[in-house]
Amino acid sequence: MKALTYHGPGRRTWGEVPDPVVVDPEDAVVRVDAVTICGTDLHILKGDVPEVTDGRILGHEAVGTVVETGPGVRTIAVGDRVLVSCISACGRCGYCRQGAYGQCTGGGGWILGHLIDGTQAEYVRTPFADNSLHRLPDSVTDEAALLLADILPTSFEVGVRNGRVSPGDTVVIVGAGPIGLAAIITARLYSPGRIIAVDLADSRLDAAKRLGADEVLNAARADAAAIRALSPDGLGADVAIEAVGVPETFELCTRVVRPGGRVANVGVHGKPATLHLEELWIKNLTITTGLVDTNTTPLLLDMLAAGRLGTADLVTNRFGLDEMPDAYDVFADAGNNGALKVALFRT
Amino acid sequence: MKALTYHGPGRRTWGEVPDPVVVDPEDAVVRVDAVTICGTDLHILKGDVPEVTDGRILGHEAVGTVVETGPGVRTIAVGDRVLVSCISACGRCGYCRQGAYGQCTGGGGWILGHLIDGTQAEYVRTPFADNSLHRLPDSVTDEAALLLADILPTSFEVGVRNGRVSPGDTVVIVGAGPIGLAAIITARLYSPGRIIAVDLADSRLDAAKRLGADEVLNAARADAAAIRALSPDGLGADVAIEAVGVPETFELCTRVVRPGGRVANVGVHGKPATLHLEELWIKNLTITTGLVDTNTTPLLLDMLAAGRLGTADLVTNRFGLDEMPDAYDVFADAGNNGALKVALFRT
Amino acid sequence: MKALTYHGPGRRTWGEVPDPVVVDPEDAVVRVDAVTICGTDLHILKGDVPEVTDGRILGHEAVGTVVETGPGVRTIAVGDRVLVSCISACGRCGYCRQGAYGQCTGGGGWILGHLIDGTQAEYVRTPFADNSLHRLPDSVTDEAALLLADILPTSFEVGVRNGRVSPGDTVVIVGAGPIGLAAIITARLYSPGRIIAVDLADSRLDAAKRLGADEVLNAARADAAAIRALSPDGLGADVAIEAVGVPETFELCTRVVRPGGRVANVGVHGKPATLHLEELWIKNLTITTGLVDTNTTPLLLDMLAAGRLGTADLVTNRFGLDEMPDAYDVFADAGNNGALKVALFRT
Amino acid sequence: MKALTYHGPGRRTWGEVPDPVVVDPEDAVVRVDAVTICGTDLHILKGDVPEVTDGRILGHEAVGTVVETGPGVRTIAVGDRVLVSCISACGRCGYCRQGAYGQCTGGGGWILGHLIDGTQAEYVRTPFADNSLHRLPDSVTDEAALLLADILPTSFEVGVRNGRVSPGDTVVIVGAGPIGLAAIITARLYSPGRIIAVDLADSRLDAAKRLGADEVLNAARADAAAIRALSPDGLGADVAIEAVGVPETFELCTRVVRPGGRVANVGVHGKPATLHLEELWIKNLTITTGLVDTNTTPLLLDMLAAGRLGTADLVTNRFGLDEMPDAYDVFADAGNNGALKVALFRT
Repeated sequence: MKALTYHGPGRRTWGEVPDPVVVDPEDAVVRVDAVTICGTDLHILKGDVPEVTDGRILGHEAVGTVVETGPGVRTIAVGDRVLVSCISACGRCGYCRQGAYGQCTGGGGWILGHLIDGTQAEYVRTPFADNSLHRLPDSVTDEAALLLADILPTSFEVGVRNGRVSPGDTVVIVGAGPIGLAAIITARLYSPGRIIAVDLADSRLDAAKRLGADEVLNAARADAAAIRALSPDGLGADVAIEAVGVPETFELCTRVVRPGGRVANVGVHGKPATLHLEELWIKNLTITTGLVDTNTTPLLLDMLAAGRLGTADLVTNRFGLDEMPDAYDVFADAGNNGALKVALFRT
Repeated sequence: MKALTYHGPGRRTWGEVPDPVVVDPEDAVVRVDAVTICGTDLHILKGDVPEVTDGRILGHEAVGTVVETGPGVRTIAVGDRVLVSCISACGRCGYCRQGAYGQCTGGGGWILGHLIDGTQAEYVRTPFADNSLHRLPDSVTDEAALLLADILPTSFEVGVRNGRVSPGDTVVIVGAGPIGLAAIITARLYSPGRIIAVDLADSRLDAAKRLGADEVLNAARADAAAIRALSPDGLGADVAIEAVGVPETFELCTRVVRPGGRVANVGVHGKPATLHLEELWIKNLTITTGLVDTNTTPLLLDMLAAGRLGTADLVTNRFGLDEMPDAYDVFADAGNNGALKVALFRT
Repeated sequence: MKALTYHGPGRRTWGEVPDPVVVDPEDAVVRVDAVTICGTDLHILKGDVPEVTDGRILGHEAVGTVVETGPGVRTIAVGDRVLVSCISACGRCGYCRQGAYGQCTGGGGWILGHLIDGTQAEYVRTPFADNSLHRLPDSVTDEAALLLADILPTSFEVGVRNGRVSPGDTVVIVGAGPIGLAAIITARLYSPGRIIAVDLADSRLDAAKRLGADEVLNAARADAAAIRALSPDGLGADVAIEAVGVPETFELCTRVVRPGGRVANVGVHGKPATLHLEELWIKNLTITTGLVDTNTTPLLLDMLAAGRLGTADLVTNRFGLDEMPDAYDVFADAGNNGALKVALFRT
Repeated sequence: MKALTYHGPGRRTWGEVPDPVVVDPEDAVVRVDAVTICGTDLHILKGDVPEVTDGRILGHEAVGTVVETGPGVRTIAVGDRVLVSCISACGRCGYCRQGAYGQCTGGGGWILGHLIDGTQAEYVRTPFADNSLHRLPDSVTDEAALLLADILPTSFEVGVRNGRVSPGDTVVIVGAGPIGLAAIITARLYSPGRIIAVDLADSRLDAAKRLGADEVLNAARADAAAIRALSPDGLGADVAIEAVGVPETFELCTRVVRPGGRVANVGVHGKPATLHLEELWIKNLTITTGLVDTNTTPLLLDMLAAGRLGTADLVTNRFGLDEMPDAYDVFADAGNNGALKVALFRT
């Protein structure tokens, strides 16, 4: 089959590799019908994720059709149309039993396109299929479902739920890329009083506005005080969601929230940040970090099926699966071409 | 009356000042029967708290007897034996209505011995008396009650409750001074599986052991890995409570907790810390900071009266009120003389 | 002034009574600009609430203008346009300190039009003014604000929040009168997957549909099994909100929820219900009851001002204050004339 | 092998039956080393549980040694010493993913000694072995572990946690049989202010006192008002735990709690109770019911191993496995002979 493989920093190949087969009794093999590229894949290509070894097939988000199952798979069958989630779950370890699948110590967690071959291929082997695949209702399209493989549960769990967004809250979302935009969509499920989106790119702020931000601010022209001033009493936001992953944006988040506020970090960081405890020790702040657990994926799927999740506009560029290299080029240059999520479909 | 006043960094005076009187209809004036000195008072004397102005009477913890009340005071009467809490509460602002008295925007919060005259005197004026004083049952001694003016609610609310200590948890407490020791006492209310105390002074670790720590480690001889190894599965602590206030101890706390763990900062910090987001972004951490609200003071008083809070051993040195300068000298040198809390009593 | 007074079961008078004055230092006197009638007022007139004595002015919901304040009132001033809430709060008792104002043991709670004279008059004395009146922003009309005096916080706190309505939930609301309709409006703040309204009157079910119910069922033609069948997996609702107050509707609620479901009782009951513990003991049910605390009134006001609460259509009939007897006649016959809330305005 | 089988109301046999074998790939077969009898077994023998069919082996609590595993079992091995829990969990259904194993819709839940053969035998087949058996540390004895098969997690989850017992609370426990006594033990993990035990048998009240009840009251000589009077302010208990299972004790629980209190039903009921909504609608009550999920079993095991759970005194009578009929006789007459839990051991 064809697959996108990694060969050290800056080197990727779209070429022939062996087809995957069931290795473990709880595996399934899924034919990939739709797949996308994540910002994390670009990080891997920069060499930021040394656990990824030469020859690894990348990708951890897909929609597909089950073509083979191991003898230990009980609830998923050949022919099922499924969502391949970025997180696999053994279902038996202490973390899995608490729904913290992202921290699975039994062989799951974020493994696809990371520790084992991933989804940017014609077929993918998915371990712990019962606990890691989600059957899709007919009413949900491949393209919409694809957004539930990672960015919607990530923004919802790690951003909105960790930040305890509540009715009436003032919510600041720093970063209006795909994750930040998905945070706008999912924050609205709790009816905040206002959502303020902050980014450096006006094109992304336009998208933020379309998806439901009440105010948008270009970070080049607004400081923490200006953002705080947008809260009803001027004391600051109830919640700040970090969706970039650099020290400056994290520190901005800690400065825009009110006493008693919450900072929910979603961004993937490569460097430490400074925590101004000399100011913050007295402010009753709650700061959370986290990898997605995808324990809300069934809920989000239900809401998508019920027409309660407006995900339109997040996919901006569509390709055939064979155009994988082009899709990577477009996504890598998203800052200039306005791309948000790219989607590739089996043809 | 006699009072301890501040006159710029390093300068304090025990001498005559005018008696306080009721200024606002909701004020009370309390005769001080017992008073203590807080680590924060030493910070003020170093000049770390610039809001404290020349001539200010220090102190924010006392037990006393009401000698005068303003016409707006309803539930406190002359003659009542009361706890003077470190936090005053207007009772009307948005923060007070949520029990976040420490963040009061209506004129309360931490004001005693900070923005207005405090308790290290023969008499003290206490604003918002109905919401800021606590009537004491006869069964509670002045000395025991004194510990509820600050350190017990602080360690309980900001350390134990923010850290969500739960039955079976592995709890690491970094710092075994009065606040850290009070955190041991109040953590035990939730039956953690084990409490591990960390400090640099062996004398304080001995006190920690006496008050209920299961393991004690000298920080000079133990690193994060050694502390994590004391958890049952070796993954780390469920909760780490920071009770020192320097960058190193905060950073240690973030390294001893397991994925999904909580870090509750109680220490008063004068400098920023480094937050290693490049490691922590993926670890589902919750970090909290906070000033005490004292909304658990009635609960702690009930438990003290019911014999459910073992506070013995926290007060190590007792003085007459007139010996205020000696008490300060002893407390300032606590590292060498083994003092924990000092208490001064009206004679 | 003119006022509506109670004179034993079935007897009410609209006539002259003495003007109210400040009695307690924390009182305010408010000129009534808009007022409404509650189903509870009809209960009182039937004699169901024996605490209400002869000559009592009824009414516990109003919008008005402050005309006098006692010397202990600090945050409310003459001329302020305010919401008079159904609940008064002393602000000092143990319940008030936890925001449970409805259970105030310091002289507040539900007292207006119950234990002291109420709002169906030209003027009303309001105790504990600082904690019981809410200043209104200009952008909120009298008519919209009036709905926040009782039915919106009641349905939100006692129905939606006690029932822990969450994104994706299946919510059954039994009773589509003013409270049930307000429950539909406020449940939507949490983006449930579907709201199913149940009533005996098709006119009320039409209103439910207009206000956001996804499905409506006439209770005369639908049993518990039919309602459960509307949940996605057929196991039943996540939440059932009782908004009627008779045994049959309460029991229906306990039968339409799934294992693990919540039943939030909002209805005012005059008789006991049967709790089928022989079926329910094993079902992980949570049943809540409650009087409103109005601790969410500031939040709801913010959301109303921000255009986030759609309350249109709840007020169906408008009168001048002098038409009080007519308004009572219309409201008492709401079952036949389709009235929901009636509003009376100062002319 | 020998086993205790049910043959219709009132008829049980201790005799030879075929040995169990692995039927499903995820099964294990466990040799029973210790087993107990539950009050529920007596209910079954009375014919109260019609799902139990002729010939069924009873029993849902055991400690044993794994002698065979199916090919789909991964984390449990032959030779492992394990706790056989009263609840089996498929690990894949929506309820299991939320830790609500008692409500498993995938073939688990309470099945042992109910829908499939149980533990009162020399061997038992246990489905979903990975998710339903718990490996035991050496430091925990068979007898202590046996109490974790049902009564300790049941009292902890359904009583103490559902009732949200918190430090300082006044907790009333109605019923001082094995479950009520286990509720005393597990309530103490949260340091309530006082535990009040109520029963009709003075011998059980003596046991309650030994295990940590602060006050004991004979229900024949104490009504709700007398119990409420034992709370510090006389308003009533914060939590009432029902551990009997008859209408009178449930109704007593609803009358002894304060406004805002919680009633946690643990008892197995055969008849409906009356819920006095005409009094309770206004009282902010929370009532919970539930079957145990056993999701706290690992936590309780840790605490048992750490010496943090005092379970001594709960097992009063010990037998050899062959003495099963005698053990039943003693347990069935517990009201007269003072037996609490009986334990039978392989000889």
